[in-house]
Amino acid sequence: MSVTTIATIASFGGKLLKLSHNASTTGCEMKFNLYLPPQATINALHKVPLLIWLSGLTCTADNCSEKGFFQHGASAKGIAILYPDTSPRGVGIQGEDESWDFGTGAGFYVDATASPWSNNYKMYSYITEELPKTVFAAFDQIDSSRVSISGHSMGGHGALSLYLKNPGKYKSVSAFAPIANPLKCPWGEKAFKGYFGDDWQKTGAQHDSTELLKQWKGGDLDILIDVGTGDNFYKQGQLLPENFIAAAKDIGQEKGVNVRFQPEYDHSYYTMASFSDDHISHAAKYLFA
Amino acid sequence: MSVTTIATIASFGGKLLKLSHNASTTGCEMKFNLYLPPQATINALHKVPLLIWLSGLTCTADNCSEKGFFQHGASAKGIAILYPDTSPRGVGIQGEDESWDFGTGAGFYVDATASPWSNNYKMYSYITEELPKTVFAAFDQIDSSRVSISGHSMGGHGALSLYLKNPGKYKSVSAFAPIANPLKCPWGEKAFKGYFGDDWQKTGAQHDSTELLKQWKGGDLDILIDVGTGDNFYKQGQLLPENFIAAAKDIGQEKGVNVRFQPEYDHSYYTMASFSDDHISHAAKYLFA
Repeated sequence: MSVTTIATIASFGGKLLKLSHNASTTGCEMKFNLYLPPQATINALHKVPLLIWLSGLTCTADNCSEKGFFQHGASAKGIAILYPDTSPRGVGIQGEDESWDFGTGAGFYVDATASPWSNNYKMYSYITEELPKTVFAAFDQIDSSRVSISGHSMGGHGALSLYLKNPGKYKSVSAFAPIANPLKCPWGEKAFKGYFGDDWQKTGAQHDSTELLKQWKGGDLDILIDVGTGDNFYKQGQLLPENFIAAAKDIGQEKGVNVRFQPEYDHSYYTMASFSDDHISHAAKYLFA
Repeated sequence: MSVTTIATIASFGGKLLKLSHNASTTGCEMKFNLYLPPQATINALHKVPLLIWLSGLTCTADNCSEKGFFQHGASAKGIAILYPDTSPRGVGIQGEDESWDFGTGAGFYVDATASPWSNNYKMYSYITEELPKTVFAAFDQIDSSRVSISGHSMGGHGALSLYLKNPGKYKSVSAFAPIANPLKCPWGEKAFKGYFGDDWQKTGAQHDSTELLKQWKGGDLDILIDVGTGDNFYKQGQLLPENFIAAAKDIGQEKGVNVRFQPEYDHSYYTMASFSDDHISHAAKYLFA
């Protein structure tokens, strides 16, 4: 459970810590970043809540730390942010580095069941269990009872599916440009076939946010989603937010799924930076309720 | 004077334009970015002022556009931001790509006088004359009479020296971690020797902010400078803000030079992001006076 500090960087009055640990779930060293807002460094009397941010394909913990601008809002509200990596790295599986949308940098926040991925590609267990436990053990200024989740693209799929699979575990969820129905898009089909094998549709349904939403029995939802209308991956049918909206209507939760179609915004961190304050505020509403 | 649009990116309610033009000063195609705040796109009745941001060694126009978060404040205040490149590129001078702190990415905002650099490395003329003229001709929603300047590291040297060499040309100046006395630091000595040749100390004095400040006769100053105490280049003596402060005292302008030593902040864009709103506000005070 021990954590190694690689760097400590001053940011918006707090500290961005670059960290690593030897993760048993994934069987390799995993890097991650943790933003501690000023409230976590100056006042040990009050613990701060945590927002877990799940990044998209190809990203490491650094991309959103540098370009997402979430520290701006987190500093103002007093929220820690956990930026995990997006997959195991360097575990020596043949072909792990062949694609940008599968293997390294593309763990899809699932526990793989198919060989040769099932030994290491356990990002679902890593994100829901091992990493937060490691963080709470190492940083007692973080309140383990107040955790929200958010993410972008593959990480938006991760945030929505982890929230919907675990009612009550996270105080709130939001997403940018989520892969909202991976069973029905090329990215999701490739990943689920690879990680789940022949059984990919059945196992994949347990990780598909639109399918999970159809089964939701956790009470009233309040999900914030931003999708840019200039997002090429949205236009190509990789995101499918309309399917998620339709599922919300099917279960009478259309008011609980607020998808904002942002005119002309694209798939990049410029979009996240522009609206990160809104997502921090959305999380804060529940983390400080 | 024609400008080519490479990309248009939605950012904080405005548009970040990735642009290029064939620059006669530098004899090559020059890329640059221009942020138009929402006020410049929705209301043609009122022109917006311009902040020129000069980046540091190795940077292109993209680094600060992605990581500096100046768009956040500029969107709120209604200020356009011009992000120029840091040197000519690909002009075919032998050795132009050999160093990260000389040649490509390291134009130092001077007009070189020594061969073989003097034909193309004219970043002083490019930034003070050709580029703004090009921008004002192409974007009539920008008010050419209200221009401020700021920058980081090599670009902080550029911002301070251009401001001090041209009294009245810029409404305000600020800087992050500027190379404040290039004649006295390794980076500056290498650059000035290369670009000015044997005459480097005499010509260099005309571009050294500390030397220029000693000669300042332009009236009361109000210069905002942020330097992180965790900045390794500050610790190594590349920045020398103390020499700039001493020169301000020499001319009775100590109240006009506000150097904020930010505890533990480093030389990175994390520092700029943390305080960019302050620098936008500093510029706004004069751009909207």
